[in-house]
Amino acid sequence: MFESASLAHHVNKAAYRRAEPKLREALLNAQYDLKQDGRFSVLILIAGVEGAGKGETVNLLNEWMDPRHIEVSGFAEPSDEENERPRLWRYWRALPPKGKIGIFFGGWHTQPIVDRVARRISSGQFESHIGEILQLERMLVDEGVLLLKFWFHLSKAQQKKRLRELEADPVTRWRVTRKDWDLFEQYDGYVGVCEPFVRKTSTGEAPWLMVAGADPHYRSLTVGRTLLAALRERLDEKAVRRLPDRNPPLPPDVDRLNVIRALNLDQTLPKKDYQKELEHQQDRLNRLFRDPRMKQMAVVAVFEGNDAAGKGGAIRRVTRALDARSYQTVSVAAPGEEERAKPYLWRFWRHLPRRGRLLIFDRSWYGRVLVERVEGFCAEPDWMRAYAEINDFEQQLAQHGILVVKFWLAISREEQYRRFREREKVSFKRFKITAEDWRNRKQWDNYERAVCDMVDRTSTGGAPWTLVEANNKYYARLKVLRTLADAVEAALGRIDMAGKKNLEKKKGRKRGDR
Amino acid sequence: MFESASLAHHVNKAAYRRAEPKLREALLNAQYDLKQDGRFSVLILIAGVEGAGKGETVNLLNEWMDPRHIEVSGFAEPSDEENERPRLWRYWRALPPKGKIGIFFGGWHTQPIVDRVARRISSGQFESHIGEILQLERMLVDEGVLLLKFWFHLSKAQQKKRLRELEADPVTRWRVTRKDWDLFEQYDGYVGVCEPFVRKTSTGEAPWLMVAGADPHYRSLTVGRTLLAALRERLDEKAVRRLPDRNPPLPPDVDRLNVIRALNLDQTLPKKDYQKELEHQQDRLNRLFRDPRMKQMAVVAVFEGNDAAGKGGAIRRVTRALDARSYQTVSVAAPGEEERAKPYLWRFWRHLPRRGRLLIFDRSWYGRVLVERVEGFCAEPDWMRAYAEINDFEQQLAQHGILVVKFWLAISREEQYRRFREREKVSFKRFKITAEDWRNRKQWDNYERAVCDMVDRTSTGGAPWTLVEANNKYYARLKVLRTLADAVEAALGRIDMAGKKNLEKKKGRKRGDR
Repeated sequence: MFESASLAHHVNKAAYRRAEPKLREALLNAQYDLKQDGRFSVLILIAGVEGAGKGETVNLLNEWMDPRHIEVSGFAEPSDEENERPRLWRYWRALPPKGKIGIFFGGWHTQPIVDRVARRISSGQFESHIGEILQLERMLVDEGVLLLKFWFHLSKAQQKKRLRELEADPVTRWRVTRKDWDLFEQYDGYVGVCEPFVRKTSTGEAPWLMVAGADPHYRSLTVGRTLLAALRERLDEKAVRRLPDRNPPLPPDVDRLNVIRALNLDQTLPKKDYQKELEHQQDRLNRLFRDPRMKQMAVVAVFEGNDAAGKGGAIRRVTRALDARSYQTVSVAAPGEEERAKPYLWRFWRHLPRRGRLLIFDRSWYGRVLVERVEGFCAEPDWMRAYAEINDFEQQLAQHGILVVKFWLAISREEQYRRFREREKVSFKRFKITAEDWRNRKQWDNYERAVCDMVDRTSTGGAPWTLVEANNKYYARLKVLRTLADAVEAALGRIDMAGKKNLEKKKGRKRGDR
Repeated sequence: MFESASLAHHVNKAAYRRAEPKLREALLNAQYDLKQDGRFSVLILIAGVEGAGKGETVNLLNEWMDPRHIEVSGFAEPSDEENERPRLWRYWRALPPKGKIGIFFGGWHTQPIVDRVARRISSGQFESHIGEILQLERMLVDEGVLLLKFWFHLSKAQQKKRLRELEADPVTRWRVTRKDWDLFEQYDGYVGVCEPFVRKTSTGEAPWLMVAGADPHYRSLTVGRTLLAALRERLDEKAVRRLPDRNPPLPPDVDRLNVIRALNLDQTLPKKDYQKELEHQQDRLNRLFRDPRMKQMAVVAVFEGNDAAGKGGAIRRVTRALDARSYQTVSVAAPGEEERAKPYLWRFWRHLPRRGRLLIFDRSWYGRVLVERVEGFCAEPDWMRAYAEINDFEQQLAQHGILVVKFWLAISREEQYRRFREREKVSFKRFKITAEDWRNRKQWDNYERAVCDMVDRTSTGGAPWTLVEANNKYYARLKVLRTLADAVEAALGRIDMAGKKNLEKKKGRKRGDR
């Protein structure tokens, strides 16, 4: 993998001086065309061995181009904020918008490699990080991001030569520390981990681009020209970049039965029973959220449902039970300008809660496979891949100890009609009903089909859907409250057990070690 | 994941009788159109729980369509032949050609699930199988295969009802054995493994298509209509199905140096020394291949190189050292008709050797990233993804204990000219030189670029490239022989160690168990 990058590549000063001004001008033009074009973002990953010119290259790119349209993110030790979110949160956070160039100095590759070199993670865990990275990079490419992954390399001999040279010069001697030589000693182990990593994460659409790091002129021209060629190729494309439809159609309806129609939407519940039980469940939820173990987890509750199914009312019955500092509600409507400029999951990643907190989504990422699918806002290949992307996303939350609880509030077509009419009549409810609601209603069957596919393809052991029969609001609210409280209670219980289990594992490992 | 498929779906007899003839006719028409069209093959995977109508569906599809253009492959316990090949060999072997429908009853999903349910493999190994499956399915889709994965499901209650009903009827009582009830007892464990498997292997292009298995009419119409819709969608497509170019360009040449130009092609070696050393290395190779440990491994040697670089001569020096029963040589030229009808790696998989043997490829799968790239026989996205596909392929060989040794024989442009001329002059060498050779020669620089990218992207720890300076034939042949013998010797050594290691592991596990 590192054959070419280990050679003594060299560009002399005169040749570099001739080439550089032209390259800079062309890069600057491309950067402005990118801004103008605005159809895609560029993400540059800077990776590789120490001393191979990674930092210098980042500085150079900023110098060569207009730094106002470049966003550099350096990733070192994660912050407190970051540590309380899933591993990939900080990279999502830093994704550049369309029209701009983002440079990640260090990235999602760094930690798994470092941890594997130090044997802090097993080869199985390393593989699982690699799987996560493949999913992420594929999603970015599918979302239209121009992803350029540069790997800077120095051979062991080149590495040694560099340290010796720095030491020999009194001006640069201070730059070489004991730690540098320690790292040098680990060179073989490091490259031994990097080689399979680079191989397994080099795909057709997101290949690692090798850069021989020893000669600054050669290195700079290589990066600059590769970036330029990639930008031009994409900018000069005539047709719209669109995935071909390679998806087989999902099975058609054969009988009239589906998971929604199988529900008995008309449940009954006397008001008196409702009020008593409401108080009980709210009290229960309140106590659960004040449990000290809650500090080790977080909860994300997703509310989806037919228009006028009573999502808002159900959410309020939940939040009323809680301390206002412990939850947040995010209402999801059509994406804003900033959100449209990022991959579609970005606007949900950004809200992810810290530990101990409840985050409520009033509508959510499932819009991708509901309204966007039905209304044709995204193409079939895009919503088809979304099921897997959403499952991956929710799995990452689960792995980080975030409990995901998902509700679909279902009402009948007749009940919806009744509620729409009522909203139109009652003046203080009129804001709740728009022409769009009536339009959506015409697509009833298509929405139902989309909901069934969604439940089938995203109801998982870790994050199951709860279907809520909601023609009766009392019944629906209680089912929501009870399900949420049950799920939180069970998750807190697992923390106990997980704690015990970890302890046992550690003991076991110590015993088995060496 | 199994929500819809657990419902009591039902189609009554009358409705089925009305629907069936139309569906059959449409399927038959689609099948003939597929044969006529000939641009793609269809692969149907039949998976899911016992008793959900998998076998019945396979029979039905054969009945509904023309069985002469359907290839059914049932995969139960692997045969001796299959056990001596990498795990995926038997599936590659059975891939249908373009224009036909292949049905896999059981497939690459079966063994990992069964092994995981029985705890014969760890969750890490299970994940790694899932990764392998994702790679394979993506490759098939990229190669244009229409992949339809049907998952047949029965809920636990449905499963129980079915067994009870079979037992109650004296005619069918014999069909229910103790084993069936044992399997039923394991239902929860089985589905607990299947659920994450189905989730993780459901992608946009290769989603699992859920089939409720309890009602035969419903099940049959679901499969038939899904198959029909998928066939028609693809057959009625106007444009050629082509991947968009989502690949960034590989780094351009910045200086004149590369891994080929870094070689000193003109090595010297007196004939006397050559003959003595030749004898020694051949003797050594002969002894290595007669080593009893050889029965636990196999060797694949790949020879690539410039035209007239001496591949044939080097191969003959290897084979002369060996018992004729222990090796096979495969000369790879343009693919034949049968080969063009399958994914491009098929024609290499088919030759994979049994244990104890050496398989020599005179040219190989690297044609994809050499001649096919340079001559434009395949599009950029196709050769770009080939690097990862080839690495995956070679890793699967390595995991199965097949040693892969790869040689690139390099001669200079001048030396090639000299050899071409000589071939034209000497009557018994004239067959070796064609107009194509002269044409290829004009593309010298493009080939060189392709070779460098190939080495950079496919020289891995497990299967490194050996670059052979070949202007001097004696030197080249000895380097080949010595490298091969060294690699085989080292691999045999690892078998010893691996044996010991395995033993230790087993002991350790026993001690740690329960």
